Amino acid sequence: MDVRALFLGPKGENKNFFKEMLQEAVDSNISWRKTFHPLDPYLFRTKEGHSEHFRNTLYETEDVLIRLSQQLQEKSLPWFSPRYMGHMNSDTLMVANLAYVMTMLYNPNNCAEEASPITTQLEVEAGRDLCELFGYSRDHAWGHITSGGTVANIEGLWLARNLKALPLSIAAHPQAKHLVEGLSQQQLLNLPVRQTLDLISALEQQHIFEEVNNNSIRSTGLHQGQLGKVLIPRSKHYSWLKAMDILGLGQDQIVPIDVDHNYRIDIASLQKSVEELIKAGTPILAVVTVVGTTEEGSVDPVHEVIALRNHCEQEQGISFYVHCDAAYGGYVRSMFVDEQAQFLPYNELIARYRQADLIPEGVQWPKPEVYAAFQAMDAVDSITVDPHKSGYIPYSAGAITYRDKRILRLLSYHAEYTTSAETNDIPLGPSILEGSKAGATAAAVWATHQVVPLNLSGYGPVIGAGIVTADWLSNKLKRLEFSCGERQFRTHLMMHPDYHMVNFGFKEVGNDCLKQYNILNQRFYEATSFISGRTFQKNFLTSSTSLSQAEHGGAPEAFVQQMGFSLEQWEQEGKVYVLRAAVMTQFLRDRQEFEEYWLAISQEFQHLITNILHQIDSPT
Amino acid sequence: MDVRALFLGPKGENKNFFKEMLQEAVDSNISWRKTFHPLDPYLFRTKEGHSEHFRNTLYETEDVLIRLSQQLQEKSLPWFSPRYMGHMNSDTLMVANLAYVMTMLYNPNNCAEEASPITTQLEVEAGRDLCELFGYSRDHAWGHITSGGTVANIEGLWLARNLKALPLSIAAHPQAKHLVEGLSQQQLLNLPVRQTLDLISALEQQHIFEEVNNNSIRSTGLHQGQLGKVLIPRSKHYSWLKAMDILGLGQDQIVPIDVDHNYRIDIASLQKSVEELIKAGTPILAVVTVVGTTEEGSVDPVHEVIALRNHCEQEQGISFYVHCDAAYGGYVRSMFVDEQAQFLPYNELIARYRQADLIPEGVQWPKPEVYAAFQAMDAVDSITVDPHKSGYIPYSAGAITYRDKRILRLLSYHAEYTTSAETNDIPLGPSILEGSKAGATAAAVWATHQVVPLNLSGYGPVIGAGIVTADWLSNKLKRLEFSCGERQFRTHLMMHPDYHMVNFGFKEVGNDCLKQYNILNQRFYEATSFISGRTFQKNFLTSSTSLSQAEHGGAPEAFVQQMGFSLEQWEQEGKVYVLRAAVMTQFLRDRQEFEEYWLAISQEFQHLITNILHQIDSPT
Repeated sequence: MDVRALFLGPKGENKNFFKEMLQEAVDSNISWRKTFHPLDPYLFRTKEGHSEHFRNTLYETEDVLIRLSQQLQEKSLPWFSPRYMGHMNSDTLMVANLAYVMTMLYNPNNCAEEASPITTQLEVEAGRDLCELFGYSRDHAWGHITSGGTVANIEGLWLARNLKALPLSIAAHPQAKHLVEGLSQQQLLNLPVRQTLDLISALEQQHIFEEVNNNSIRSTGLHQGQLGKVLIPRSKHYSWLKAMDILGLGQDQIVPIDVDHNYRIDIASLQKSVEELIKAGTPILAVVTVVGTTEEGSVDPVHEVIALRNHCEQEQGISFYVHCDAAYGGYVRSMFVDEQAQFLPYNELIARYRQADLIPEGVQWPKPEVYAAFQAMDAVDSITVDPHKSGYIPYSAGAITYRDKRILRLLSYHAEYTTSAETNDIPLGPSILEGSKAGATAAAVWATHQVVPLNLSGYGPVIGAGIVTADWLSNKLKRLEFSCGERQFRTHLMMHPDYHMVNFGFKEVGNDCLKQYNILNQRFYEATSFISGRTFQKNFLTSSTSLSQAEHGGAPEAFVQQMGFSLEQWEQEGKVYVLRAAVMTQFLRDRQEFEEYWLAISQEFQHLITNILHQIDSPT
Repeated sequence: MDVRALFLGPKGENKNFFKEMLQEAVDSNISWRKTFHPLDPYLFRTKEGHSEHFRNTLYETEDVLIRLSQQLQEKSLPWFSPRYMGHMNSDTLMVANLAYVMTMLYNPNNCAEEASPITTQLEVEAGRDLCELFGYSRDHAWGHITSGGTVANIEGLWLARNLKALPLSIAAHPQAKHLVEGLSQQQLLNLPVRQTLDLISALEQQHIFEEVNNNSIRSTGLHQGQLGKVLIPRSKHYSWLKAMDILGLGQDQIVPIDVDHNYRIDIASLQKSVEELIKAGTPILAVVTVVGTTEEGSVDPVHEVIALRNHCEQEQGISFYVHCDAAYGGYVRSMFVDEQAQFLPYNELIARYRQADLIPEGVQWPKPEVYAAFQAMDAVDSITVDPHKSGYIPYSAGAITYRDKRILRLLSYHAEYTTSAETNDIPLGPSILEGSKAGATAAAVWATHQVVPLNLSGYGPVIGAGIVTADWLSNKLKRLEFSCGERQFRTHLMMHPDYHMVNFGFKEVGNDCLKQYNILNQRFYEATSFISGRTFQKNFLTSSTSLSQAEHGGAPEAFVQQMGFSLEQWEQEGKVYVLRAAVMTQFLRDRQEFEEYWLAISQEFQHLITNILHQIDSPT
């Protein structure tokens, strides 16, 4: 595979292929229409198509499209260029775009197989691919596409919530209660996930699952606080707040877990919270781990969370659901698995990297703790993953995968649904949060996985390019110094990236005021984003975030101190502004290209800061 | 406007225009890429594009796309043809497809304006269009795009739930409680929507809204049953069951409202439930109305529900939220409003219909009660509407509109969000259920509204064609009789459509066994759907549904009896199978075309029933 043949390219280098395939997509759809009952009448005869009304309608359509095109060109973000390093966006894969357009012309709706006989199968297949990526069983696990990570997270927590409540309903049912005989209320609320899933199977054998489930939370609603706490790291995406609200659990049931200076779950803090909750007799509904935090790209120690759960089960008989929000980082697991979907031993992996020149010597990847975290993903109960982030697939394509598909029974809204071999016995519409959805998305994800498999030789080089460039960029940012007139500046790297998100800031040498630093960096962001006008004319574009004491606790202190600010400054200002660059480009993987690029953007940095200083000094 | 110039057409009649515009979309994107910093290096030089690896990657991409194309052609549903009359699907508007593709190449994400400076504005604009369609104020109302109607319904009920709970939090807050002084718990839980929204404004003036809202349900979670009941008609989509489950309310809090023989809310039944709840002191969280039931296309008497609410407010001081699920039927309101977005008086409307030949004399539309229902939509609190249903826009494009945008404050997840004139002060991501979403969808909806405005002269002829054809078809189905050998059959129309969904069944003359009827019609469905094999070779394709006593109560009795079955048969069988045809085609609006079509499909009916009888008599 040649990665360069996968993208349209920053100069449209693959335009001939792209246009040829697009034409093929349209032509084949049109010949399909024509040959469906060839004798059926035409909608209009050619001469009617020359009437004034007819032509005016076409002109009006063209006019609106041209206006749209102009607006898009005026203000869109040039994701395709290495000059854009901000959100987790880059050029998207040609095959995904082409498959989407091709399928859109048939407009299937994956809500019901009846309206999407092909794309429903493709969605099931794409879901299996993702399960396999995470080390789940293709047959016993289950995954499907969502409109995005937020919906996937809500769905995952919904299932965790209903799973947590089920044993109570079992204990209350005359024909079922023998299954949980002798268990206390506390034990019922702390069963291992697998054990509750086994109870579902047992209920199904007795043909009373529907009845028991219909006496559970889906019908009775929520008893405030009864199901316990959800432990979520402080680095969480705000969709978790939405999820707790929507699901009726309430944000007060969140126990925020401290993150360390790398914005990863601080396992000691998690352990402390877990122990306190156990001691207080409060159930733990779920622990959320994040693989690829939105703001920092950090990877939580999933392995340590799983180890902690095992420990709680063995020592205390208490367990909880573990969800992994890998919306951003899920596809990065392709960097660890071979063509047989085996997670490779560390040394073997490194050998493969060197052999295929995926990760050259000297690049700090993968850190052992990141390796261990990705490895342990196969033990979590559900995983959110967005093809439209590190999968290089256009919006909107999210997904969720469940380790054990029996959990889906909690959602099913048709007791007597039609079983079907093709769909793995699970109908889509009644078994997911959403309803109608574009079959084109499923086709795009499926086709992409066919061309770019979820392993070292497929997504490996695609994702690997960004990882390598991010490492190079990080090392440059650690030591960049430049002057603007008589003032000296240097860049500070917040931390070495866990894969490809680089956070950094510009600091004036000698400045000990955090507020001033924040203002400077916010100005830099404004100068390098749509806020200050036409994106098309900019030489460098990035994103930013503000890390606050209120949200992140003490985690930002390390960076603040590393830059030389006092903790008093931190207490006083309460937040630190950073620039945020997801490095997903394919185009800087060549060291020489990268050096030239770095020279240009580091000059641009100097130029931009000089301008900003000028504006601050002489505001107009 | 000429409607025939809006669709690609069943024979690809507008292929030249479509392909030209598609090429323009790609070309303009490529020139945008090329001209963004022209001196930036190419990803590869032409000669590298001829290497074996490179070519193999392209071949592999082509191969996967061809396999996809083959599968799509083998099994897709021919929505574009008048031979397909089933789900609410037809050919989609060219402008929507073209705008989608054009925008997809820029891949904006409407979660954050930073990632979609143009399409966020287009979404806000499209939302305003929908508000105006429903008679809401463009400035004080608010609408946005969702992935579909299910998500919109969940979001609407989520807001209704949180609105219901807010007064309790106000009463508990020292600086806020004066606002609701003297109100009992029951009064707090039965405030009119407008009054609670005014309380939000009052809290904002005191700068304590965030604090009060953060002490409300979003944080505390749900007290089981405290917020009362949700009244939903029996004709509801199953997404309402999901919504009650997800939101933690529980399905036990649903009070099912009987529907009449037209599958519309039986207002006496609703009134009785409301009175009983008031008497019992149980709050009414919301009443759901449906404009376009999924199975029957029926339109609830929204006007009577609003009148009932007014009555309750005036006579008993008790009020409730009213949501309208117009996922299917929302766009049909375009049939009633003129170019100034005015809902036309009945006589004026009919005059416009005749003048523009939208609805010819003799076609039964609009029934007065349907007219009144659409008119009253401007008084409900929120409306779900799917552009991907009666908007002729490809999946996935749903939407929700709120009568008063102050309600959004309940959702906001960033207290200090950036205000922005362009987005009407409301950032998308933190103010909706979903997160990331395709800006391309917003562009598709926006562009379509530009070419096909939401009024009589825009969507009027597009939607009107289906309404007229559905009326003609209904009249034919009332009186079709044919023989298969010595056996006589006739078609029965379940009811005259409220707009364009026609439900019917085949009954053997003299058969008094409902079970046999059900089997025959199920077989007919199987013969005319993907279940019996390649859709491409079929002469007629339809959909079906089964109306059961368990779900629909006594509503199906009228149809059962009209066909001549006894009520004993109905009690015994408990369900009646019907064929379900949404008539959305543009191609049968000509009476002569329609008559030829009818001749062909009525012969096909006879042919298919003959085959089925043969299979039943001699199963192989």
